[in-house]
Amino acid sequence: MRTHYCGELTASHDAQTVVLCGWVQRRRDHGGVIFIDLRDREGLVQIVFDPDRAEVFHRAEQVRSEYVLKITGTVRPRPAGTVNAELPTGAIEILGLELEVLNSSETPPIQLDTHAADASEELRLRYRYLDLRRPEMQNRLRTRAQVTQQMRNYLDRNGFLDIETPILTKSTPEGARDYLVPSRTHPGEFFALPQSPQLFKQLLMMAGMDRYYQVARCFRDEDLRADRQPEFTQLDIEVSFMDEDALMTLMETMIRELFCDVLGVTLPDPLPRLTYQEAMRRFGSDRPDLRVPLELIDLADLMQDVDFQVFAAPAKDPNGRVVALRLPKGGELTRKEIDAYTQFVGIYGAKGLAYIKVNAWAEKGRDGLQSPIVKNLPDAALAGIMERTGAVDGDLIFFGADKTNVVNESIGALRVKLGQERGLMSEGWQPLWVTDFPMFEHDPANQRWVALHHPFTAPKVDQIDQLERDPGACLSRAYDMVLNGTEIGGGSIRIHSAAMQQQVFKLLAISEEQAEDRFGFLLKALKFGCPPHGGMAFGLDRLVMLMTGATSIRDVMAFPKTQTAACLLTDAPSAVDEAQLKELALRLRTRA
Amino acid sequence: MRTHYCGELTASHDAQTVVLCGWVQRRRDHGGVIFIDLRDREGLVQIVFDPDRAEVFHRAEQVRSEYVLKITGTVRPRPAGTVNAELPTGAIEILGLELEVLNSSETPPIQLDTHAADASEELRLRYRYLDLRRPEMQNRLRTRAQVTQQMRNYLDRNGFLDIETPILTKSTPEGARDYLVPSRTHPGEFFALPQSPQLFKQLLMMAGMDRYYQVARCFRDEDLRADRQPEFTQLDIEVSFMDEDALMTLMETMIRELFCDVLGVTLPDPLPRLTYQEAMRRFGSDRPDLRVPLELIDLADLMQDVDFQVFAAPAKDPNGRVVALRLPKGGELTRKEIDAYTQFVGIYGAKGLAYIKVNAWAEKGRDGLQSPIVKNLPDAALAGIMERTGAVDGDLIFFGADKTNVVNESIGALRVKLGQERGLMSEGWQPLWVTDFPMFEHDPANQRWVALHHPFTAPKVDQIDQLERDPGACLSRAYDMVLNGTEIGGGSIRIHSAAMQQQVFKLLAISEEQAEDRFGFLLKALKFGCPPHGGMAFGLDRLVMLMTGATSIRDVMAFPKTQTAACLLTDAPSAVDEAQLKELALRLRTRA
Repeated sequence: MRTHYCGELTASHDAQTVVLCGWVQRRRDHGGVIFIDLRDREGLVQIVFDPDRAEVFHRAEQVRSEYVLKITGTVRPRPAGTVNAELPTGAIEILGLELEVLNSSETPPIQLDTHAADASEELRLRYRYLDLRRPEMQNRLRTRAQVTQQMRNYLDRNGFLDIETPILTKSTPEGARDYLVPSRTHPGEFFALPQSPQLFKQLLMMAGMDRYYQVARCFRDEDLRADRQPEFTQLDIEVSFMDEDALMTLMETMIRELFCDVLGVTLPDPLPRLTYQEAMRRFGSDRPDLRVPLELIDLADLMQDVDFQVFAAPAKDPNGRVVALRLPKGGELTRKEIDAYTQFVGIYGAKGLAYIKVNAWAEKGRDGLQSPIVKNLPDAALAGIMERTGAVDGDLIFFGADKTNVVNESIGALRVKLGQERGLMSEGWQPLWVTDFPMFEHDPANQRWVALHHPFTAPKVDQIDQLERDPGACLSRAYDMVLNGTEIGGGSIRIHSAAMQQQVFKLLAISEEQAEDRFGFLLKALKFGCPPHGGMAFGLDRLVMLMTGATSIRDVMAFPKTQTAACLLTDAPSAVDEAQLKELALRLRTRA
Repeated sequence: MRTHYCGELTASHDAQTVVLCGWVQRRRDHGGVIFIDLRDREGLVQIVFDPDRAEVFHRAEQVRSEYVLKITGTVRPRPAGTVNAELPTGAIEILGLELEVLNSSETPPIQLDTHAADASEELRLRYRYLDLRRPEMQNRLRTRAQVTQQMRNYLDRNGFLDIETPILTKSTPEGARDYLVPSRTHPGEFFALPQSPQLFKQLLMMAGMDRYYQVARCFRDEDLRADRQPEFTQLDIEVSFMDEDALMTLMETMIRELFCDVLGVTLPDPLPRLTYQEAMRRFGSDRPDLRVPLELIDLADLMQDVDFQVFAAPAKDPNGRVVALRLPKGGELTRKEIDAYTQFVGIYGAKGLAYIKVNAWAEKGRDGLQSPIVKNLPDAALAGIMERTGAVDGDLIFFGADKTNVVNESIGALRVKLGQERGLMSEGWQPLWVTDFPMFEHDPANQRWVALHHPFTAPKVDQIDQLERDPGACLSRAYDMVLNGTEIGGGSIRIHSAAMQQQVFKLLAISEEQAEDRFGFLLKALKFGCPPHGGMAFGLDRLVMLMTGATSIRDVMAFPKTQTAACLLTDAPSAVDEAQLKELALRLRTRA
């Protein structure tokens, strides 16, 4: 119907007759002339209707915001002084010759101008088809499509096969709650929607597919705190006969090419790698944001013998940790700001937030330090703190002293918060790999080991008895890719031996009967020539969110759900007929 | 781990040392030497182990079928006389220098040699990871990946955006039963899995996305007669501001490029088009297989006045049809064969299958025709039949006379069956478009109109009153792409006016309340500047099945389900805990 998109017209089209289709962004009547900004996917262009052409002028008078028009006109330069340098089409305008109203519009409940993002999210989700007309949203979905396309092309080029795995499947045990689908043909039985294609991609390796990928929809029926969605998308990858080094190189090359092609950004080659242990030690986190220059400094050895039990007790506890976090120029912090940070670390279980303001250490020593805790620390300890942190006059030192996980979580989070709020964050992109994760974490509440990744992750040891001897000391062959403090992907080399897999299930307190019931098909498949294999999955929504600068994954999905897992646009979920339930052999249960 | 794939080695690699990883297809001990055929995704290669190299020879002796090996060896030409011309690697062999058993295998329950396809489908599905190791299955999945990739590339190149739509959604009304997903956060309410992304893609057009595609998973909880699967994949497409001619051209170009690139086949340009009416008239089907050269010949005008009521009654009935189907050289058919065809048309409701064998028409006239019905037909009618069908001595003419739909279905099916069984089928690919479908079909059982495509399909008329006046005469703007007798895709221009959409719902006996409840969001969206739009969906499974020469869509899916919608590999669906049901506010119902 059209000859051009609105947004692609420039001075090079001068004097051409064009046909455009799009939406009325704005109509202005000015100096007896009508101006219409017509919008399509590619941008805006200004159409001018002259009263000399009475019929089309009259039609243009009837037009309102969001009407759908087909316009024939001629391109001409804008008069001197009216060029709009901010608009790609701002050097030209279209003299309107014909105008056809393809559809009218009621007044939209969301203004589609620059203030549109101010509309409540509830309204934006209910009228998603209007919200998505905004260039900002269009560009996000367009970047998402481009990201997917680039990654597919990379994988196609590298011999990966795009293979679809089932959505109606059996429950996989990745910790979260499954969405269930009742079976009509097998009354009383249920499918589960996949939390990931994990087992199917491993089966594809056993099937000799060698290199697999899929842009896979995954489902988790979790409580949607934070920025989660019941359905999300991951780029899912698995390869055979490749070790972690080769696989990580292949994956980081993909991400490097992606950032180069889509954003014009050069990422480091190779990506830096940190072990889990080093990441926890220096940043208190296994997904450190390297844009923040602050690091946690261990002090336990200095504090074991001090009288100040708040430091000495965790310093002596093998499960405890004492750290300092130096904030350059932190001396400027007000009491009120420090109180707010104290409250912040409390969220992560810290019982307080000790600090020292370094006013004049060089000149006055102990008296040059301002702090409620200085009086409790001997000179040697203070000197050690000052030396190890490298603090200078004007700085502030925060302290964390508690169980290791409390210190890591609270001071790790404080580190990032200070980075954001104190202007310490560097610009740009800071990707890295985190490797050498522990194989298991101990769950003290249930007195058992849990898998840090998932139960199919291979340990770094080959021998089963090594694994049994000290599960807590055992590292896994897992790796995460972290970008600006967000985990964007993770994976591992998998177990390819039935005996090792059974041993891991045993350590995870999965009984033989449970293992047979839930994973019998996997254990059986492992016995028929399973190749060494491993893989990775990237969280597409999160990656695109970072790449587009959006603040929520909802803003990079066309039709997201609310925090209560509802679709405000279509009003799903909704009630169903009694007849449908009957067919599924189900009955509603009235809650107590 | 490897330097090459097994299947890629040729004489050009002569004298190179290579490292290969793969599965043992076969081990033979012959003349004191061990031969192992090693298999990977790319093919087979022969490894030779010489007893002079005792250690590796001894290892090779331990190896059995489907063991996973890593082999280092040198490439050398096969000795004269042992070259295997049928194997791409058949000119060379590898002298085995090192052998590492990466994994062992129990004896597989399916033989992975040329007789593998003889295994029961039950066994093949239960051990799918073994079945998929067969080169035939590998090639099917590889072609599928290639087909998807080609179509994506074409659409990317043409400005289409790949946009994901929800899997957890509201019931859509496309005739089949929905799979339901109970909501935990909204007790007593359910999501439905989409039968297609139809309404979401229309909403994306209303959102100004202009050109959308998605390789979309779709779900139907149907009884799985014939070759259907509970989940299937369609290439789903929608565009704005484009009429059906432009859209069909864009789509057929994609299919032409696909066949050219993947199969090296040149499809006609443009594809032939038939109206629904012509397709039914000539072939008795709206998805005619044009490889069969036979056509239905109308005879009603010749038969209205004959005494033979079997022909005269339907000839006079406005809802009746009388046709002939000439089978060249059909005189060879035995009585038994004709009886079998009579039984065959009975499946489609035909009460019999009249025929005339043309033995010696030119010489003997009426006496040269052999048939139980000739005595009932006057000379003029016989002469008319002979002239219109162009039958010559040695031919056989079948007749269909009944309600139009019975004649079309039975003789349409007979036409294809004769084509297949009597060697009349031409080789190759016969694609076409079928257009100008009726907008509605009358359902006599429920005394109401039903949509032939779906209720969002635009009629060929613009005026609502034209639609109301005679719904049965109204054509739609729908089009199907048919290939070798299978519908591989279908689509339409959609309704973009709220008033027209409401009128169509009304004609389909969807009450205002029902329409508001089910499609309220669509009717509302139509009021805010909906652009003219249309689209199409291709059945990916079926298309790939045709392109790979498979006989079932199960053979082009990695993990298909059985006819009772079960996965034999993972044993899904399965029972769930009472606690899970409780969380979903559900109770099992014991069937009466």
